[in-house]
Amino acid sequence: MSAASTEPTRSSPRVVIVGAGFGGLTAAQHLAHTPVEVVLIDRHNYHLFQPLLYQVATAALSPADIAAPIRHVLRQQKNTTMLLDEVVGVDAAARQVELREGGALGFDYLILATGSVYSYFGHADWPRHAPGLKSIDDATDIRRRILLAFEKAETTHDADAQQRLMTFILVGAGPTGVEMAGALAELARAALAEDFRRINPRAARILLIEAGPKVLAGFPQKLADFAADSLRRMGVELLLDTTIEAIDAEGVIANGKRIASATVVWCAGVEATPAARWLGAEAGRGGTVKVAPDLSVPGHADIFVIGDAALVLDRHGKPLPGVAPVAKQEGRYVAKLIAARVMGAPTARPFRYRDQGALATIGRSSAIADLPFIKLTGWLAWVLWGIVHIYFLIGFRNRLSVFVNWAWAWLTYARGARLITGEKRAD
Amino acid sequence: MSAASTEPTRSSPRVVIVGAGFGGLTAAQHLAHTPVEVVLIDRHNYHLFQPLLYQVATAALSPADIAAPIRHVLRQQKNTTMLLDEVVGVDAAARQVELREGGALGFDYLILATGSVYSYFGHADWPRHAPGLKSIDDATDIRRRILLAFEKAETTHDADAQQRLMTFILVGAGPTGVEMAGALAELARAALAEDFRRINPRAARILLIEAGPKVLAGFPQKLADFAADSLRRMGVELLLDTTIEAIDAEGVIANGKRIASATVVWCAGVEATPAARWLGAEAGRGGTVKVAPDLSVPGHADIFVIGDAALVLDRHGKPLPGVAPVAKQEGRYVAKLIAARVMGAPTARPFRYRDQGALATIGRSSAIADLPFIKLTGWLAWVLWGIVHIYFLIGFRNRLSVFVNWAWAWLTYARGARLITGEKRAD
Repeated sequence: MSAASTEPTRSSPRVVIVGAGFGGLTAAQHLAHTPVEVVLIDRHNYHLFQPLLYQVATAALSPADIAAPIRHVLRQQKNTTMLLDEVVGVDAAARQVELREGGALGFDYLILATGSVYSYFGHADWPRHAPGLKSIDDATDIRRRILLAFEKAETTHDADAQQRLMTFILVGAGPTGVEMAGALAELARAALAEDFRRINPRAARILLIEAGPKVLAGFPQKLADFAADSLRRMGVELLLDTTIEAIDAEGVIANGKRIASATVVWCAGVEATPAARWLGAEAGRGGTVKVAPDLSVPGHADIFVIGDAALVLDRHGKPLPGVAPVAKQEGRYVAKLIAARVMGAPTARPFRYRDQGALATIGRSSAIADLPFIKLTGWLAWVLWGIVHIYFLIGFRNRLSVFVNWAWAWLTYARGARLITGEKRAD
Repeated sequence: MSAASTEPTRSSPRVVIVGAGFGGLTAAQHLAHTPVEVVLIDRHNYHLFQPLLYQVATAALSPADIAAPIRHVLRQQKNTTMLLDEVVGVDAAARQVELREGGALGFDYLILATGSVYSYFGHADWPRHAPGLKSIDDATDIRRRILLAFEKAETTHDADAQQRLMTFILVGAGPTGVEMAGALAELARAALAEDFRRINPRAARILLIEAGPKVLAGFPQKLADFAADSLRRMGVELLLDTTIEAIDAEGVIANGKRIASATVVWCAGVEATPAARWLGAEAGRGGTVKVAPDLSVPGHADIFVIGDAALVLDRHGKPLPGVAPVAKQEGRYVAKLIAARVMGAPTARPFRYRDQGALATIGRSSAIADLPFIKLTGWLAWVLWGIVHIYFLIGFRNRLSVFVNWAWAWLTYARGARLITGEKRAD
């Protein structure tokens, strides 16, 4: 019934976009002036500015500061409909997607921008003990765990329990792990420092555990070294070349040694969402879809995969990283390609990623920037990081709100969003 | 064990305060310079500015805008410890409170400021279908229900279901019901109006159902009439003299008639928390504790009950209302009384409430103010309401953040906190 009623005869081609992350939203926005009907589907009603999610998890920002209602972002784009629903399959032959709530939805062009999820390498019980940082709910859950650990340490009279509660483990020293470690160190050493009577939050142990030999593997050695030194100066313990063998309610086992911890956060590997399985397409590393040079799925010229769900190689045959600029450039490329086809002016130019550099922040006044022509560390990189992140935040209000919160936090070392919420529902 | 270890010989008298709402927090703050040890216990780590909670439920403000970490508020008050725990009983004879986590805790003075909860008049299944608005989690739950109703109305193809999803019922036309109705009307008629493609949010029905003959029963007739007229002009349907007989997943039965609605919010009667039962004290209306003129519990000169949990009569023998100014004045009175006793200068002056008036807002640029010497309606009352509420918000950051959010919302009609969160855990 629903399939039928969503299918009055289409007067213009329909582009269905699955996922309103950086890739999907950018694609939708670049189809605003193309004579197509755009249907954007997401499981959430908000576009999430994921690079700042760790700031929600560490109580610096509120969820609404880094998330914008998708409908509101696209309200003036009259050719676009947003559906709050979940795609559970694709019928490429019938040219339709299967929705969890809304039945089948036909398409002329399909853009899969479904992103990635954390991969626990087959350990089904790890996510419960070591949540990853992907959604707003993940972030407020992690925030609750961190703040509650300090609260419980304050009330307990058992020294071992207190030690365990004051030990925080971050698994994986990529950008998220490094940023979480820095923010957590500042939370303990500055924002919370004066607020307890029985414990000393400054004494909290923060361990960043990495299986590889260095932090920020994607960055040049010099910048990674700067980040590692900065973290150590902030009191973060770096455990490199260290493999996590078990995670349970008591902590972790790493390189054969048990480390007691009440709060473990997963910042390690990701894997793609099941786009490849839906399409029966060839899967690359981590379940990504191996796409053609025009980002279409081999054998399906009208189906595209972009962002973290796609495997796209650069000129040196290296996969492009799962970061926002890649997803956004791919979204814009596919939107323009579809527009050209609809207008009868097809282009054969393959997608090429223009690398604008990478940024990572470590803490107050400290960041690294790996730009095409220059590498920056410290204060200047941090200012650049702040400007870039505020600039790209969706919606003027968010930018202003984030700026006010950051300025206040920077001046006072206070954290405004130190709320323990969701207790009753959790665990 | 824990009782023992929290009980090294006390060098100064210990004041235990249960509840960090307006009454408990005010009492703690007024004991800052008294030679006592203050222990403030709350189930949440934040003090909640409850008068603005409806703005979180209607997506105008973020939780962190109206909640401040209790520890942070009291960080410089070195004689005060905050415990995140729940009191489950009082042993008046042994002079100790029972904590859920922390065992027994002795006191020399006890202030019970445990507040009130929504009363469903014995209907155990109503809270599930019609949540009340007491905590941050309640507010984000109600926000989720409201926003999700519009989203589901957009995706459904069933006209009856759509009608049910677009019908919102608020039970009880006190200040919370009136403010929710106004804010919900503005959400539907302005903030969401342009954002959907298949439904027209302006067509949403908002019903305010009241068992009594008028809205805002505590206000003078003229002001209540103004509020009722304003609500009607905003498209809110007022159902007065209407009794709710049933609430279920399909909606409500009111005065024998079924009204289909997917979103029912309880803004009706409250009852006190179990302070009276803990003390074996005489209970007044709604389980409140009938206190002596100095707010102590008859027979227990060192145990005080303040705020919504207490029954205090004014000079005309009418119970004082459950509002912030009453709780704050009672908190200050008890703090001063304890300080006087500790300093050996007991006073016998009974508590007297100084009525500073009451305010209620209906919507954009519209409010009512019942002040001691003047009654205001409309724009002027609304400006006064805004100034008063921002002034009393705890913490400078919150004031600035709320001001920015309000100014932005007022100028653009947009709502910044339109996030549907907590889906996975709900229901």
